[in-house]
Amino acid sequence: MARLRVHSFSVSLDGFGAAPDQSRDDPLGVGGLRLHEWAFATERFREEYGGDGTGTGVDDRILREADENIGATVMGRNMFGPVRGPWPADDDWRGWWGEDPPYHHDVFVLTHHARPPLAMVGGTTFHFVTDGLDAAVARAFDAADGRDVRLGGGVSTVQDALRRGLVDELNLAVVPVLLGAGERLFDDGVPEPVGYRCTRLLASEAVVHVRMERIAQAADDGTVPPPG
Amino acid sequence: MARLRVHSFSVSLDGFGAAPDQSRDDPLGVGGLRLHEWAFATERFREEYGGDGTGTGVDDRILREADENIGATVMGRNMFGPVRGPWPADDDWRGWWGEDPPYHHDVFVLTHHARPPLAMVGGTTFHFVTDGLDAAVARAFDAADGRDVRLGGGVSTVQDALRRGLVDELNLAVVPVLLGAGERLFDDGVPEPVGYRCTRLLASEAVVHVRMERIAQAADDGTVPPPG
Repeated sequence: MARLRVHSFSVSLDGFGAAPDQSRDDPLGVGGLRLHEWAFATERFREEYGGDGTGTGVDDRILREADENIGATVMGRNMFGPVRGPWPADDDWRGWWGEDPPYHHDVFVLTHHARPPLAMVGGTTFHFVTDGLDAAVARAFDAADGRDVRLGGGVSTVQDALRRGLVDELNLAVVPVLLGAGERLFDDGVPEPVGYRCTRLLASEAVVHVRMERIAQAADDGTVPPPG
Repeated sequence: MARLRVHSFSVSLDGFGAAPDQSRDDPLGVGGLRLHEWAFATERFREEYGGDGTGTGVDDRILREADENIGATVMGRNMFGPVRGPWPADDDWRGWWGEDPPYHHDVFVLTHHARPPLAMVGGTTFHFVTDGLDAAVARAFDAADGRDVRLGGGVSTVQDALRRGLVDELNLAVVPVLLGAGERLFDDGVPEPVGYRCTRLLASEAVVHVRMERIAQAADDGTVPPPG
């Protein structure tokens, strides 16, 4: 069965998925780039996004896994771009990734503001979904046609999906830095704790890759049967 | 120079150092034992505390390191025992560890309630310190006579020490479970984030050992110079 997967989602040792004081200049918050240096250092990152990464070890392999058997992507609006509120009439923002984004499939962007789909070079089409996360995920599974769907960030999008019990596989990169403040991924009660177990634990020199998989589906009343 | 060290302090993936609903029956909170199963499974734990641990791998080695060059220990009262409030007149509580505790040095227990020192078999003496953490740490360094001091739990004791900038080395065991609630080790602003950097990252099959070392002393006004 097709699964909803979060990959290489970086959190600091003190639990923050984004640093404080996010802005157009600092979309990850002030100091937030420290959460992603491990990825920048990989060959995979350079292939997809540029930079000068050459690493081909554990971190590179983990980044490559993130794209395997993925047929569509869902992301929050802030991951698509820095624009807030209604789209400007003369808007020419087409994502952070240039004309040939590294998705090559349908990408569903959560927004409160309708906008026509944006077909890019290389097979990526951005669809703007105004009726919420459940609808975006459903459309993404349709588009993925049997393959899995990747859920991108940011923090609030992943939290929302965890609260709704939508995430089948949560792959985190725990980065051993202390940010002191920011957006916490695991606020109290996110997610139902007994619903997940660790199925892989792997440290590189820079970061720890933790795979949590859902082992139980929450019942309609929100309860989750105990594991085993 | 002698250092204040925290060792093998377990925190869940979602950041909790103790589970919710702590009580005499569940001193680590309901479900809190899951944070320590990795330790129970080691030979070192069995030697010191009993049980049936046989593991001699990474986790065992890390536990053994925790005792190296330690000359005294400081711990919160709840780590000494379940008694709350004034010590009962007929109190016969002598710690969780039997007549020969695994310390073999002076142990300074933080409490609001005075009590004479308790000399045990094997060189351990429990001292009850009523004038706060700074005083306890100072007395422990005196007693350690040039060796390091180990700071035990619980969560609030470690937080307090981090806030006061007393911790030189913070060795955490990140346990890949989600507790959903409990006592968070890293509340916002604990500790001054730029004051620490990771100097070792090591995963066993069960847990990730993260060593954070203080790289800068906070100035009197609370600011910390940038690393490097």
